[in-house]
Amino acid sequence: MPELRKDPVVGRWVIISIERGKRPSDFASPSHKRRVSGFCPFCPGNEYTTPAEIMAIRPEGSDDPAKWSLRVVPNKFPALQIDGELEKLGEGIFDKMSGVGAHEVIIESPDHLSSLTNLPRKDVENVLWAYHQRLMDLKNDPRLKYVLIFKNEGEAAGASLEHTHSQLIALPIVPKLVKEELTSSRNYYDMKERCIFCDIINQELQDGKRVVCENENYVAIAPYAPRAPFETWILPKRHESHYKPLENGGFSSLAEVLQRVLKQIDKLLDVPPYNYMIHTSPFNDEENEYYHWHIELMPKLTKIAGFEWGSGFYINPTPPEEAARYMREVEI
Amino acid sequence: MPELRKDPVVGRWVIISIERGKRPSDFASPSHKRRVSGFCPFCPGNEYTTPAEIMAIRPEGSDDPAKWSLRVVPNKFPALQIDGELEKLGEGIFDKMSGVGAHEVIIESPDHLSSLTNLPRKDVENVLWAYHQRLMDLKNDPRLKYVLIFKNEGEAAGASLEHTHSQLIALPIVPKLVKEELTSSRNYYDMKERCIFCDIINQELQDGKRVVCENENYVAIAPYAPRAPFETWILPKRHESHYKPLENGGFSSLAEVLQRVLKQIDKLLDVPPYNYMIHTSPFNDEENEYYHWHIELMPKLTKIAGFEWGSGFYINPTPPEEAARYMREVEI
Repeated sequence: MPELRKDPVVGRWVIISIERGKRPSDFASPSHKRRVSGFCPFCPGNEYTTPAEIMAIRPEGSDDPAKWSLRVVPNKFPALQIDGELEKLGEGIFDKMSGVGAHEVIIESPDHLSSLTNLPRKDVENVLWAYHQRLMDLKNDPRLKYVLIFKNEGEAAGASLEHTHSQLIALPIVPKLVKEELTSSRNYYDMKERCIFCDIINQELQDGKRVVCENENYVAIAPYAPRAPFETWILPKRHESHYKPLENGGFSSLAEVLQRVLKQIDKLLDVPPYNYMIHTSPFNDEENEYYHWHIELMPKLTKIAGFEWGSGFYINPTPPEEAARYMREVEI
Repeated sequence: MPELRKDPVVGRWVIISIERGKRPSDFASPSHKRRVSGFCPFCPGNEYTTPAEIMAIRPEGSDDPAKWSLRVVPNKFPALQIDGELEKLGEGIFDKMSGVGAHEVIIESPDHLSSLTNLPRKDVENVLWAYHQRLMDLKNDPRLKYVLIFKNEGEAAGASLEHTHSQLIALPIVPKLVKEELTSSRNYYDMKERCIFCDIINQELQDGKRVVCENENYVAIAPYAPRAPFETWILPKRHESHYKPLENGGFSSLAEVLQRVLKQIDKLLDVPPYNYMIHTSPFNDEENEYYHWHIELMPKLTKIAGFEWGSGFYINPTPPEEAARYMREVEI
């Protein structure tokens, strides 16, 4: 018998469809192993082809523009535009506002053939640090309310360039999904005086069957009601409302768990395309007791079709307990 | 400057990204023109390979099982299971229930090479009629609360078999997206004493720039805040809370508009993969003044990536006014 499971935070139901039960080898996902292929605007020497650099990590004292280990640049084809007034307008029954915001690219390494999985730990740490730097900077823009940091890895997951990179989009409104998470965890807090994510972490650590890996500061779990096979969340064990891995073992500790999860999925699913997203409190909100920042990672193995579009339900052929077991057992 | 637009019903924001502005020919969508390829369980003569038929349309008096113009059968790999008790259970902080429900396939034609676009109008009418028949029948099962009818056309849109078909999934709960639409349109009604969809239809018909096509009873529009390029909604012009195209010109009138829209997108976008979903009131609810059933159709031209997963926002490179103009102007 299949099972219907509810995500306790956003109330999203998923069908765990055991009859269609799938092991890692059953997914024919397009592997996105990198190959050198023609001109790449993110490779060293081609800095002039991107819009003007926002920040970079270069060796101290070096003035060679092509010597860097990380760069942040505006997206050349931005979804939103940084210059201009934020205007809000009605159009009869409809509402719109001007598309003010930022759209940036974090180029994670100069090496075209590297991925976040196989970069030196220090480089991954730098990427996670750069996310935080950009959040702190964009926070100063009073027009902006929220920054979503995300990574599309592989063409099937929406990456249009092969060279390893993440992106951020800064928005003049708090997006719907984030609002839902905030409202729901606030309601839970009002009822229980506890953070719902802290409660989930406690239950998962005691239970153990959905734990993927952990270190002193972070834990990776297969969520109870995952939208996709091998969906994995990484959460700080200590309550923290905003993405700010400065204490809690620092960026290095987070990099360790993130990279371990990536190695596990790469090994298990033959380097699948994936997306990850950082969910954090809106940056203008005070630190709070009810929301708990985390990373949601989803390998791209299944398709969104009519049922999902029409219902907001997801059908997942791999129970998270099995996914977590495969992840724990794979040798990396 | 790009624009942020809000869907007035579910409050979903989309970015209309004019800088990335796309014409129909800019989308390299995998065309899904059909070819005969090996054994097909939906072709006449192979009836024995599907689970036992639920209903069919056969010529009067014929007892040839292979002579039919439409068949409805259970999905051979159902996401939910029709037999069993509906049990609801807690698991610590989490909630689950048994996966009771129905998952059926509507085989729309015996002809392997046909599509809904080029079937005779009468056959399309029969498909729309069969949807209604199944709704009426499943309504009698007290365990079930909602039926989602949908179509995945083309592999990229999630179809695993080429032979033209739709599906339905009957659920023991009202899905999240439907609940959101119901709540929001009820709130609007409480405030205005009018149906929000009726208001949208009125504004669109007066304005005209997002109207794709219409007949006496139905109108197809490009919604104000579409998730995808060339997204099109078909709505009955007269208020109707439940999918029940018996009056309002009947199934034939709806078939006319649906087939016209399909011809327009096939011509314009070179037979793209697409999904459509019927949004209707839960079948146990009384007829009501606030919800308005409709079909949402989305060609599969863009990818869902990290930004969409993390925010519930969508980035759409084609403004709906332009999409509707292209649709109106294409010769079919």
